[in-house]
Amino acid sequence: MILDGKELSKRINNEIKQKISGYCEKNKQIKPGLGVIIVGDRKDSLVYVNMKRKMCKQVGIESRVIQLSANSTTDNILGIVQIFNNDPSVHGILVQLPLPEHVDEEKVLAAVKIDKDVDGFHACNIGNLAMSGRTPLFTPCTPLGCMRLLEEYKIPLEGKNVVVIGKSNIVGLPISLMLMKKNATVTVCNVHTTELQSKTVQADIIVSACGQAQMVRGDWVKQDVVIIDIGINHIQDPEHPDQPDKKKMVGDVHFEEVSEKSSHITPVPGGVGPMTVAMLMENTYHAFIRQVSSSC
Amino acid sequence: MILDGKELSKRINNEIKQKISGYCEKNKQIKPGLGVIIVGDRKDSLVYVNMKRKMCKQVGIESRVIQLSANSTTDNILGIVQIFNNDPSVHGILVQLPLPEHVDEEKVLAAVKIDKDVDGFHACNIGNLAMSGRTPLFTPCTPLGCMRLLEEYKIPLEGKNVVVIGKSNIVGLPISLMLMKKNATVTVCNVHTTELQSKTVQADIIVSACGQAQMVRGDWVKQDVVIIDIGINHIQDPEHPDQPDKKKMVGDVHFEEVSEKSSHITPVPGGVGPMTVAMLMENTYHAFIRQVSSSC
Repeated sequence: MILDGKELSKRINNEIKQKISGYCEKNKQIKPGLGVIIVGDRKDSLVYVNMKRKMCKQVGIESRVIQLSANSTTDNILGIVQIFNNDPSVHGILVQLPLPEHVDEEKVLAAVKIDKDVDGFHACNIGNLAMSGRTPLFTPCTPLGCMRLLEEYKIPLEGKNVVVIGKSNIVGLPISLMLMKKNATVTVCNVHTTELQSKTVQADIIVSACGQAQMVRGDWVKQDVVIIDIGINHIQDPEHPDQPDKKKMVGDVHFEEVSEKSSHITPVPGGVGPMTVAMLMENTYHAFIRQVSSSC
Repeated sequence: MILDGKELSKRINNEIKQKISGYCEKNKQIKPGLGVIIVGDRKDSLVYVNMKRKMCKQVGIESRVIQLSANSTTDNILGIVQIFNNDPSVHGILVQLPLPEHVDEEKVLAAVKIDKDVDGFHACNIGNLAMSGRTPLFTPCTPLGCMRLLEEYKIPLEGKNVVVIGKSNIVGLPISLMLMKKNATVTVCNVHTTELQSKTVQADIIVSACGQAQMVRGDWVKQDVVIIDIGINHIQDPEHPDQPDKKKMVGDVHFEEVSEKSSHITPVPGGVGPMTVAMLMENTYHAFIRQVSSSC
């Protein structure tokens, strides 16, 4: 069975659109706003920012994108963060990652006002995500999208053996923390993990976020495994072997092989990707509602 | 081989004592100070606070213990936290956990000034502990003590299979985060974990913090495993079966059985316990040095 992120995200985006238009009809001139900062011109980052901007427009969020040159200093970026922090028409702030190497990412993310931190990367939000009994103001969008998919398809988590491949701050770490909170038994793997296959083959659920095209093969998984594939990789299109510039987007999981055995699997594209954008819309909407309610 | 926390902690405490006396000789009238808040009269908490108070005296830290009655409100406790926050002679603040059920623990811990948070439980400290590339101001004492023991005995962590039993905010969670940061492959187990033994038997390193007396038996581990036993449990002393009030302190691991197979093991008592207290002394000393340097 396909975990259909495209379908679910469409429904969530529609709900948010209705909520926003409902709110705006009653409260003229107030609209949710998202401030986006992008530094440099990485092609993938530009694509992501564009997708987010388009979805904002669709659901009724006013987006303001500030693009800074790749050689901007930490202070330049902090200046924009402060402008967004102080602007009451900006309810959510998104700093598109990765930032150029010379920028102090920690300093930039820590400067985002915690109640506008719709990406959920502020240290306090991550700390509250980690600790049981605590609730962060915002949860990072990609892991949140994965959890919503699991919830939608009623995949039980408590007591399940989950293998997470990758431990990045943006995806692998936060989703591991969320799964731990749901009482799953979580094994967090990284590039130094030995005998990865011997671990994945025991897993009830595999979450892959390592950026290795089609690494998880059919013989890496057990029957009826649930697969969340967060990888976005571009390989030579096998249907056009003679055209090296024809690319195909694939995940970390070999879909054709693994889907034969899995009970549930996210496709790439159309799985986690659209959920990430929908969760950003949802986080921004919640930031908006929280800020306009507290200022009334 | 015994991972001798008693010996290592003695050395660390001595080093701190010398550093403090060296500092105080040069800077008359300034002494590190630790403010301790204990609510209620749980016997175990009183024992721990007493041990900490004694060690403070020994190394030259001025401790001030405020004991509040078990029916104190969150606001009562917050009042004391504020007094300690504002007192320049208090460099570290420790709220002895657990707090009574009716108290808002999250609110109390969040109120501790982050640069006096020597227990490392502030959400921002936990967030920075979790994220790679970040360093918290303070790391929780018990997990930090375990890591120092592993370091002292040169136990490699990168790529090793580690099973952590327990995922409490105070021990299981933070030590899992620290081991992940060292590139170990960490499996975090909890009460809902199925077939725990099948997991421990594959582990290169087992960290147990579940409070189940002697649960990990000889056939739960593989040859040459490394054992960190954080459990503190009191059982009927088997040498005095006729005296029900004679208790013996044991860990989560059956020491006699497991030590036959392990390459390294912490005893209980004399393993992790004294390291926890030494790390509190070290954290308080660092808080002191940071505060007096920044105010000069």
